[in-house]
Amino acid sequence: MNYPNGKKHHSLQRKGEAETKDSFSNRGMTLEEDINITNVYYLESDIAVIHKKPTPVQIVNVHYPRRSAAVITEGYFKQASTTDYNGLYRGKYVDFEAKETKHTSRFPLANIHDHQIRHMQSIVNHGGICFILIRFAVLDETYYVPAEKLFPYWHDKLTGGRKSVPYQTIKQNGYSIPFHFQKRVDYLRVIDKLYF
Amino acid sequence: MNYPNGKKHHSLQRKGEAETKDSFSNRGMTLEEDINITNVYYLESDIAVIHKKPTPVQIVNVHYPRRSAAVITEGYFKQASTTDYNGLYRGKYVDFEAKETKHTSRFPLANIHDHQIRHMQSIVNHGGICFILIRFAVLDETYYVPAEKLFPYWHDKLTGGRKSVPYQTIKQNGYSIPFHFQKRVDYLRVIDKLYF
Repeated sequence: MNYPNGKKHHSLQRKGEAETKDSFSNRGMTLEEDINITNVYYLESDIAVIHKKPTPVQIVNVHYPRRSAAVITEGYFKQASTTDYNGLYRGKYVDFEAKETKHTSRFPLANIHDHQIRHMQSIVNHGGICFILIRFAVLDETYYVPAEKLFPYWHDKLTGGRKSVPYQTIKQNGYSIPFHFQKRVDYLRVIDKLYF
Repeated sequence: MNYPNGKKHHSLQRKGEAETKDSFSNRGMTLEEDINITNVYYLESDIAVIHKKPTPVQIVNVHYPRRSAAVITEGYFKQASTTDYNGLYRGKYVDFEAKETKHTSRFPLANIHDHQIRHMQSIVNHGGICFILIRFAVLDETYYVPAEKLFPYWHDKLTGGRKSVPYQTIKQNGYSIPFHFQKRVDYLRVIDKLYF
């Protein structure tokens, strides 16, 4: 929600971060918020149909009050078995995960789960477009990293190698996504280059 | 979960339904349960990667007890903005909704929401495979109905026409999916016929 003075609605700001950075930056939004805005833009412009999956919740108890909506009174967060985002673009299946890190020299692989990697490998095997969006929050840089580029590092980690991907590797093997006002994380442009 | 004597675990049975029907039928499972089992089979056999999306929940309050998992103490069900299932098969994007009805002569369109139809139209426009699985529970018959076949009926309803699709129309325009022990709702076979 944008106010006439150009200030953003409070709820869209990253917690604890004042609105100090101006103009050409993401101005304190999380990667997830930026992607959601981008996906809404894609959807409303009829460019692509890509959604974030809901957070998986194990519902244990539901209360049904009279004349009002059912209330979940006990629930637990479940671990997602897939990536967070998927959808359809130019006839192709698109699937990705988004991760933000405060590190500036590396991306820790602990950010990704084993079953997510397995899912990504299946997607690649079955002909889908699969990648991860990595934001280095402090540097304010966002990269599109094809899943295929990530797998060798995952394999290294499993076989006792390093537990992170160096920033320089991501910069060289990934595709930088510049900030754009409406398409805040315009990852489809990278797909256009790579697949069409 | 199957027990050695061939009886199913209680939780897999439809509520209030005794295990009276034998052999070649879905034996009291809901359509959703059958689809989930089918999708697991597809996934584990490396045939397709298709998942049900989690139920969307608006989380209002979370309690963080010491030394144990976070508990959602207040949450509400949100209406889904898309269909329930999507994924990837033979390089193609697949998207569908599943609905069960106790009616035997018609499928009431009230079962589907306006935004779900809009979503399905987008999927078709962008080159995805989109359909609805309809089960007539009393008849124990399940049909694959291509989204394109559903749209005219939706249009009729919006312009004051009938609010349901006759069973005979579904039987003629849809594709019957016979029950199969492992692939309980083998909808990919219909896709094979229609798209490959």
